[in-house]
Amino acid sequence: MSRFQDFDDVADPSRVAGRVAALRAELAARGAHGFVVPRSDEHQSEYVPPSAERLAWLTGFTGSAGMAVVLADRAALFVDGRYTLQAPAQTDTGAIAVLNSGETSPSDWVAANLPEGAVLAYDPWLHTADAVARLAKAAEAAGGRLVPAGSNPIDAIWTDRPAPPKAPVRPHPEALAGESREAKLGRIREAMAKEKLEALVISDPHALAWAFNLRGGDVAHTPLPLGYALVPREGRATLFLDPAKVTNEAGDAVGDLAAFRDPAALPQALADLAARGGKIRLDRATAAQALCDVVAQAGGVADVGADPVALMKARKNAAEIDGARAAHVRDAAAFARFLAWFARTAPGGLTEIDVVERLEAERIDTGALRDVSFPTIAGAGPNGAIVHYRVSRASNRALAAGELFLIDSGAQYEDGTTDITRTLPVGAPSDEMRDRYTRVLKGHLAITRAVFPKGASGAQIDGFARAPLWEAGLDFDHGTGHGVGSFLSVHEGPQRIAKTGTTPLEPGMILSNEPGYYKTNAYGIRIENLILVEAREVVGAERTMYGFETLTLAPYARELIDLALLTPEERAFVDAYHARVLETIGPLVDAATRDWLEGACATLG
Amino acid sequence: MSRFQDFDDVADPSRVAGRVAALRAELAARGAHGFVVPRSDEHQSEYVPPSAERLAWLTGFTGSAGMAVVLADRAALFVDGRYTLQAPAQTDTGAIAVLNSGETSPSDWVAANLPEGAVLAYDPWLHTADAVARLAKAAEAAGGRLVPAGSNPIDAIWTDRPAPPKAPVRPHPEALAGESREAKLGRIREAMAKEKLEALVISDPHALAWAFNLRGGDVAHTPLPLGYALVPREGRATLFLDPAKVTNEAGDAVGDLAAFRDPAALPQALADLAARGGKIRLDRATAAQALCDVVAQAGGVADVGADPVALMKARKNAAEIDGARAAHVRDAAAFARFLAWFARTAPGGLTEIDVVERLEAERIDTGALRDVSFPTIAGAGPNGAIVHYRVSRASNRALAAGELFLIDSGAQYEDGTTDITRTLPVGAPSDEMRDRYTRVLKGHLAITRAVFPKGASGAQIDGFARAPLWEAGLDFDHGTGHGVGSFLSVHEGPQRIAKTGTTPLEPGMILSNEPGYYKTNAYGIRIENLILVEAREVVGAERTMYGFETLTLAPYARELIDLALLTPEERAFVDAYHARVLETIGPLVDAATRDWLEGACATLG
Repeated sequence: MSRFQDFDDVADPSRVAGRVAALRAELAARGAHGFVVPRSDEHQSEYVPPSAERLAWLTGFTGSAGMAVVLADRAALFVDGRYTLQAPAQTDTGAIAVLNSGETSPSDWVAANLPEGAVLAYDPWLHTADAVARLAKAAEAAGGRLVPAGSNPIDAIWTDRPAPPKAPVRPHPEALAGESREAKLGRIREAMAKEKLEALVISDPHALAWAFNLRGGDVAHTPLPLGYALVPREGRATLFLDPAKVTNEAGDAVGDLAAFRDPAALPQALADLAARGGKIRLDRATAAQALCDVVAQAGGVADVGADPVALMKARKNAAEIDGARAAHVRDAAAFARFLAWFARTAPGGLTEIDVVERLEAERIDTGALRDVSFPTIAGAGPNGAIVHYRVSRASNRALAAGELFLIDSGAQYEDGTTDITRTLPVGAPSDEMRDRYTRVLKGHLAITRAVFPKGASGAQIDGFARAPLWEAGLDFDHGTGHGVGSFLSVHEGPQRIAKTGTTPLEPGMILSNEPGYYKTNAYGIRIENLILVEAREVVGAERTMYGFETLTLAPYARELIDLALLTPEERAFVDAYHARVLETIGPLVDAATRDWLEGACATLG
Repeated sequence: MSRFQDFDDVADPSRVAGRVAALRAELAARGAHGFVVPRSDEHQSEYVPPSAERLAWLTGFTGSAGMAVVLADRAALFVDGRYTLQAPAQTDTGAIAVLNSGETSPSDWVAANLPEGAVLAYDPWLHTADAVARLAKAAEAAGGRLVPAGSNPIDAIWTDRPAPPKAPVRPHPEALAGESREAKLGRIREAMAKEKLEALVISDPHALAWAFNLRGGDVAHTPLPLGYALVPREGRATLFLDPAKVTNEAGDAVGDLAAFRDPAALPQALADLAARGGKIRLDRATAAQALCDVVAQAGGVADVGADPVALMKARKNAAEIDGARAAHVRDAAAFARFLAWFARTAPGGLTEIDVVERLEAERIDTGALRDVSFPTIAGAGPNGAIVHYRVSRASNRALAAGELFLIDSGAQYEDGTTDITRTLPVGAPSDEMRDRYTRVLKGHLAITRAVFPKGASGAQIDGFARAPLWEAGLDFDHGTGHGVGSFLSVHEGPQRIAKTGTTPLEPGMILSNEPGYYKTNAYGIRIENLILVEAREVVGAERTMYGFETLTLAPYARELIDLALLTPEERAFVDAYHARVLETIGPLVDAATRDWLEGACATLG
């Protein structure tokens, strides 16, 4: 039994053709020849409420990113490399062609397939201005036109579409947030003054939650209150949140800092503000084209750029850091109990779902679990090689000796968000598995041990995690690390360790450190800890130097380490980390777990 | 005596105030309240002809990058971190404030200082569209306006402005270019068809030179023919090059592939083409705003993006690679003679200029030197810490025992362009110098030895060069490597090894590998080889792997290596490289040089 996750296969390819036909009829009635269906909601969130699952409803595809374009005589679903196996299985490929967006972007396809003179419609609430510009350019290249739909045509034919979510919005305690709403608003307004902004539209619910110390529950796994905030340079801010979901406690906590209004009132309020002149900042990453249109039509200046809240939110303060440490210790105790159980039980007739449920149960036993921070990725054998595998009743695989088991999971506690991946041997691993695991570990350690100056970006250290794999002609096709929020999203920008990670790393940022190796149809390896950027004293340093504090506390799989591949420094580092794990977590767990932990944390060799 | 370099101080701060006043009077007569003076010419080249040295004429500042903004009551010169010492010494700081552009950008300053309602003029031939957009936004933020000047107001007051250059344009032999003009044009048109471009404007003279296998001599150190090309998808291309400088040989070689016209005819020809409809690609990096205006005014679609030639030019073909290898062997023999002379002579009363002249003389002795590829950077002691130091008669410093000497130089040969930096001890170095040199060497070796998969960018390996310095709290404030052309610019994009190097590295690209360390007022260290991206066989590889072939052949300074800091693998790598240097260059030099080379290339330790 799982409280926070399900294992159902929701896809039903048999309904896809009918729904696509219905959409075409609806479009024809409106004089349009095509429609673009993104996976996003009005806030470009990673997790969207059921009411916004239009792409899944239309195509059957349930992945976390994708886009469909339906034309009169053809339709295509674009998914990235993670989903090129899953998408064709979930949709009706007779009705919709599945394309790898890394090879053919929706824009490329529109430019090549939209008939001359055709009208391609889109919902301006579901695309950013940049995305609309790309699509408009593509439509124009094809000799057609991109035009906003008056209302979303899918909503017109999706007769049993769920209502938008109305989860209660509650205050996030200042003791955990570490900064008052007043102080945060003050900093936001300072940043606005510096950029000469008359107003800021907060369209990212994560930013809204952080700025106003509020949390909600409108989407799975991230405590988001879906809504907007409008912050004028002077005067009262407005929170556009459905009044039905704002608790009295939240209203009292926000007090005079902001008025609450229904989200439906946002366009008019924004237009009124825009009409008064001055620049209005819209977040490049999350603001819908519709918001730009409102500002422009009111004669205002829509300044599409970075929401200053994003970087403020990324740099955790002392209270958030204390919270993160406490959350990780709590999570580590649950994880140690899970690991000890796994070590004495597997394979033992277990399936992937059994393992997911056991881990969730251990976390529930902490008494503090609010949610898992994402659906657990638990891949036995070849399923481990699917980077974003999500077990379903249909795919559920039994553990078997001689295979690896990859488990990537996390928890939402009120004081912090966790995310940990361990790769565990079931029975005896092969030499190749040990070689690969050790290379991944070397890359993971190189990140953990990195020392770098102020101003260095995640892109500059990304290669450290890959070099031990590159030496053997291997690599992994995802970033090395993503930002993590504070009782917010487990995927948070702008900080990241990746080819595209150009944001300088700054103290207080929390990131994942998760290199991997995937052998298709065989096994997957990933090792992930969360790490905190901290100031680092270096004797004789001429620069301000930073390094990482490791937050996650769980032993690596010693059975998978090929000691001959580790340098003496790497061995000493692992030993010191294991000693810290034992010292911190040992006193918090039962005797059987502690016995196991002592063995798992013993000196290598 | 130097044939290709001079050591004059051209700056004369005493004339600056008068020239600024004259500019203000000229602006007032035109109804403008300010003017923006970039360092660029009409092609955004690094080296500009004397006729385009408007920034130097106005401000006295002779650096390779900068911008001035002159308003009615104040003026500012913006330079990057390399020039914050040089600029105040060259200009009249009473007339023009010098600002670090890394701290205050010209746009920031305009936004803060342009009076409300003021008209800020600019020359649309000297700024890209992106640059104009930034300035326009800043002017608007200040409540003013950015407007194009009808003609450049500096040209109106610069009475002895030199005439534009008219160096002969000659064909570049196909044996060296490795690909015919026809084949190159064919590939360019394929790229244009893929992007549905009706025409391509080649505004970068490097791209023009590469595409049409032509070389000129309009600017110092790079054999550029200044001009433009217009390539329609079908039909004949047009080369806009001053007819007076096109040699008969060049005309015959180009033949029917392109017509030659005067550059003054470009705007009308572009307007005629634009009026026929379709997208016209303008190079984001080098196309002037004026070109965008011409297209827009003719009702065409100016598609500002990447010039497809840039990436084609970056990937050298077999003939260019053979040429580069030959040029480097030739250059290495000259450099070995220079190093042997230096070892037996320094300090010996030598000055920086003496050393520069000796090295140039050695290169001239090859009989193949066309030019130096940039003014030699030769810094004794503290001058070595100035990253882009250029010795003048005033700054010329004598070598002294106990100091380091940094020499960064390169050659233009018809078959290839070189660029090499060595740091040489004069007398006995300190322990600190050896520690720093060895850390720089370790970073340099980490790049040289890197193995990485197809798709990896320079940004991902940049940190490899810095990690040994970061461990000691040190760093350097420049990129690790830049692209290098083939008998073209020693600074070539888009490939680079730097925080901003997002272009994937591909076989055939030539880059520099030049980490450094600079101790202000004490010494500078930099070690630079050119490296060629090549396919690399790795046993068991699952990816297409690349690595680097080192083109530059010169020993490192063994007296500066602290062997205790090198790993056994690093020592073996240096020994193998030195053996290759001796084997390749030994037979090409005189006996005295060979004797010295044998010692310099002996096994370490």
